[in-house]
Amino acid sequence: MPTLVIANKCYSSWSLRPWLLMKQLGMAFDEILIPLDLPDTKEKVLKHSPAGKVPILIDGDVTVWESIAIMEYVGDAYGSPVWPEDRKARAMARSVAAEMHAGFVGLRSACPMNLGKKYASRDRGEVVARDVARFSEIVRDARGRFGVGGPFLFGAFSAADAMYAPLVTRLDTYSIALDATIRAYVDTILSLPAFQEWRSAALQERWVVDADEVDEDAIENYRKAA
Amino acid sequence: MPTLVIANKCYSSWSLRPWLLMKQLGMAFDEILIPLDLPDTKEKVLKHSPAGKVPILIDGDVTVWESIAIMEYVGDAYGSPVWPEDRKARAMARSVAAEMHAGFVGLRSACPMNLGKKYASRDRGEVVARDVARFSEIVRDARGRFGVGGPFLFGAFSAADAMYAPLVTRLDTYSIALDATIRAYVDTILSLPAFQEWRSAALQERWVVDADEVDEDAIENYRKAA
Repeated sequence: MPTLVIANKCYSSWSLRPWLLMKQLGMAFDEILIPLDLPDTKEKVLKHSPAGKVPILIDGDVTVWESIAIMEYVGDAYGSPVWPEDRKARAMARSVAAEMHAGFVGLRSACPMNLGKKYASRDRGEVVARDVARFSEIVRDARGRFGVGGPFLFGAFSAADAMYAPLVTRLDTYSIALDATIRAYVDTILSLPAFQEWRSAALQERWVVDADEVDEDAIENYRKAA
Repeated sequence: MPTLVIANKCYSSWSLRPWLLMKQLGMAFDEILIPLDLPDTKEKVLKHSPAGKVPILIDGDVTVWESIAIMEYVGDAYGSPVWPEDRKARAMARSVAAEMHAGFVGLRSACPMNLGKKYASRDRGEVVARDVARFSEIVRDARGRFGVGGPFLFGAFSAADAMYAPLVTRLDTYSIALDATIRAYVDTILSLPAFQEWRSAALQERWVVDADEVDEDAIENYRKAA
């Protein structure tokens, strides 16, 4: 059985991506969680991968790191339906997944993933607005062209949905205004049983990562213990 | 015949990646070059892809953007040997390619790709040194484990080599000190006929992109005209 090495479920957006995909595909896997920002974090991660970053998938004598590479590996090694079946949809799904992998930096830095809190709606600047607009365009475009047959970006759930799941949580956490189409897609992801399972575990965590806590009062604090 | 939309060959590191891979695979393709940083650049790119970035591959009614997605598409649609044949090597190749896609930010920002010049060796700071060390570790690790049978990262040329090619040019342009193993790999890439073809075209270009010209005197200026 493969092992996925991840970090805190409350904060680790990169960890959520392959975890959610593998759950959605019904794969069985073990999990090692290395808490972020502790004195031995770096050393623990480096024991699994020389790149020093989570997530890492260990499958027998194969080690794969970087969420997008893990996703391709799962399709490649297990024959799982990681990407859409239609070749045009698949080409677009890989494009938007790669766009996420290196992009949306404005939204990602202004609004860190934090499943433990909810913040009031407010103007978060032009860069965030631009990233939200691009995400909305992707949802409309993918669903408009390939979304028949399911509520996900390309109809059935794919790695593209998993790649955008952490961004989706941010739209919710930071109460970002969305139109009905985008809101429906966000709710689809947030109500997935696999996502709910991840979130429940996140809310049990006690660790607080200061860098991922924005400097404003939350309107909800779901982690009563933290 | 597919069309690859790229930017200036002198500066566009992202364009070089799929271009070099497709040339190495012996694919025939047309090329559209959109010069960076001109008043109509954005508008021209957006005509081809809503993400607004090059490279873009147009293949009949399929549009693919982001270098890593284009590479997967080429393997997927044409059955080309984009990744190593061995599944363990393939997993590592995809991992290091994805690591490049979102990483090496220190080296990339301090040392922009610029094929027209050569700069003297000097201390470029700790972040650059760390990125060079990580790249060297990747080369040693990949070649040590999978490099038999060829001079490339995984023996035969693969998408992983194409992903790192722009980084390789930076090591040369900025005269970064390298040990013999890494130097040999760098020379292998720089002496590829396909890379030489790209570089020759780059040196014919007249456009100067100020953001990619570092603020120091060059020891060589290969573009006499610029």
